[in-house]
Amino acid sequence: MGYPDTFEGFCVDSPQSWNKFHKAELIPKPFDDSDIDVQIECCGVCGSDVHTVTGGWGDFEGPLCVGHEVVGRAVRVGKNVKLVKNGDGVDVGAQVWSCLKCELCKNKNENYCPYLILTTLSTPMVERLTAVGPITSARTTGITTYSPLVRAGIGSGKTVAVLGIGGLGHLGLQWASALGAETYALTHSPGKAADAKKLGAKEVIVTSEKNWAEPWAFRFDFILNCADTTDSLDIKTYLSTLKVGGQFHMVGIPNKPLPEMAAMIFTTNAAKLTGSHLGNRQEMEAMLKLAADKGIAPMVETLDISEAGCKEAVERVEENKVRYHFTLTGFEKASGRK
Amino acid sequence: MGYPDTFEGFCVDSPQSWNKFHKAELIPKPFDDSDIDVQIECCGVCGSDVHTVTGGWGDFEGPLCVGHEVVGRAVRVGKNVKLVKNGDGVDVGAQVWSCLKCELCKNKNENYCPYLILTTLSTPMVERLTAVGPITSARTTGITTYSPLVRAGIGSGKTVAVLGIGGLGHLGLQWASALGAETYALTHSPGKAADAKKLGAKEVIVTSEKNWAEPWAFRFDFILNCADTTDSLDIKTYLSTLKVGGQFHMVGIPNKPLPEMAAMIFTTNAAKLTGSHLGNRQEMEAMLKLAADKGIAPMVETLDISEAGCKEAVERVEENKVRYHFTLTGFEKASGRK
Repeated sequence: MGYPDTFEGFCVDSPQSWNKFHKAELIPKPFDDSDIDVQIECCGVCGSDVHTVTGGWGDFEGPLCVGHEVVGRAVRVGKNVKLVKNGDGVDVGAQVWSCLKCELCKNKNENYCPYLILTTLSTPMVERLTAVGPITSARTTGITTYSPLVRAGIGSGKTVAVLGIGGLGHLGLQWASALGAETYALTHSPGKAADAKKLGAKEVIVTSEKNWAEPWAFRFDFILNCADTTDSLDIKTYLSTLKVGGQFHMVGIPNKPLPEMAAMIFTTNAAKLTGSHLGNRQEMEAMLKLAADKGIAPMVETLDISEAGCKEAVERVEENKVRYHFTLTGFEKASGRK
Repeated sequence: MGYPDTFEGFCVDSPQSWNKFHKAELIPKPFDDSDIDVQIECCGVCGSDVHTVTGGWGDFEGPLCVGHEVVGRAVRVGKNVKLVKNGDGVDVGAQVWSCLKCELCKNKNENYCPYLILTTLSTPMVERLTAVGPITSARTTGITTYSPLVRAGIGSGKTVAVLGIGGLGHLGLQWASALGAETYALTHSPGKAADAKKLGAKEVIVTSEKNWAEPWAFRFDFILNCADTTDSLDIKTYLSTLKVGGQFHMVGIPNKPLPEMAAMIFTTNAAKLTGSHLGNRQEMEAMLKLAADKGIAPMVETLDISEAGCKEAVERVEENKVRYHFTLTGFEKASGRK
């Protein structure tokens, strides 16, 4: 079989048929000297894939192929590419390109490059990366939760609460704890308490209980908000648990706008409402070292990639019925390579 | 004349009659060993006085006497008071008491003490302070803008924009500039440009111009938001002018809730939305030293205190027609002391 001109992927056609996947041919960007083609071996399923296919983050016309937590192998490498050789194992995250020329890129903020290209919409079974930008050598779910913690100086002597124990949060708990912070889990699902403690939480605070926040007033330096339901949270109550100048930091992004807030909820303790997007290459490298040193890994369920597998994955993520992350496998078989 | 059992003040009766002041007798809290009575010599008029009398921050039943930027003299000092002697000159700010026992007070955050007592509602012509707490020895308008700048590490190498050039902002410009930051003014009033430059702005950015923010993308470390109209601002546009991790910091508090915001406006550059309330004693002392060293002072218009003077003051503050702050004077005459 010659080198393909088209790639294949499991696609959806519109937000109305968000859980109906079908295999489709996709035309990649023309290959140039700075590109890499990656043969995908497996791919995680992120909450943001579900926000995207359901149209929560915006309408679209398909065929749309999501997926941006890729592990694979470089099968074609442009001659300008220096970091990767043909045959190398590579990880791909949510961002496939940044300009590397702007002030942000030059200051280790390539993840905020105004020209960045995200991976979603570009992930068929073979993925074409423009590789002069940072090929993310770490899984997205990891860096999304690791980067904001280290940028806030989280470590020994700090107190962190991780809100929402799912795909992002179950890694956030592990990072915060491994970095040396006193770590708490905030969840409305008491059934996750045992896991949260295994993952590093000193205590699990159940936010569906009345007046849950009162004993925790002014306690946390940092709340890592991994929930994507912030539109329905009582943000004032969460801010009340922060120390003076503490952060309520969003990495899960809801479909709807944030709830109505009075400016005064910020002045009671100088609380900061913020968020972030991925992380830089240096943080990815430090994160992978920390993961290796401390034995940190995601807890995953695997599903074979297929129309049924993709459907089950997005439905169960949408219903918050996975502990704690899906990995789609079997790409070789599905693509007829094996 | 013996020592009075009642105090006098110019009061309003309800938000409906917010600009109709009348002199009324007020009964102070019983004097105890930790209190000070202050004979007022002059008093600034703050935007928050206007928010209070108009009911913008909540309804009330009068007689209500506002005012919390007091300069005066201690005329009675309780025996537990150590910092002030009878006859001392004193300044009083927006906060008259904090517990000094909680974790916040013990960690130089007495301005966030959960038990703090604010000055408004307690400012007749003689003011009774409970003085074991920090008597603010600095004008409120100064510390409100100074404290957030120093807590954010503003100084040489940082870029600050001061939004809203009024009572708070005209001091904010001077602090930011004196601390060594490259300082800009953001205003919708081009007529204030000349003053803003005199006060330390390198450049004045007129926010009523179309696409004003585009040339300023990712430029500021810190926006000191002194405007009290944040409910009607396009916050996303302001956040777009922040560097990665920069702060949009509110010290002016609008009557209405903040405008609707998507969570994603925070993740584009990890912008932080925050605010603060006053500052601590150490900051007040450092601020007064900086003011003395650099010749920093508010630009004030004076009005004699009277029914007409109070009316003119609150009306012109409400209409943004003062450059840049009112000081009410003539208390001795109005109280029949002279």
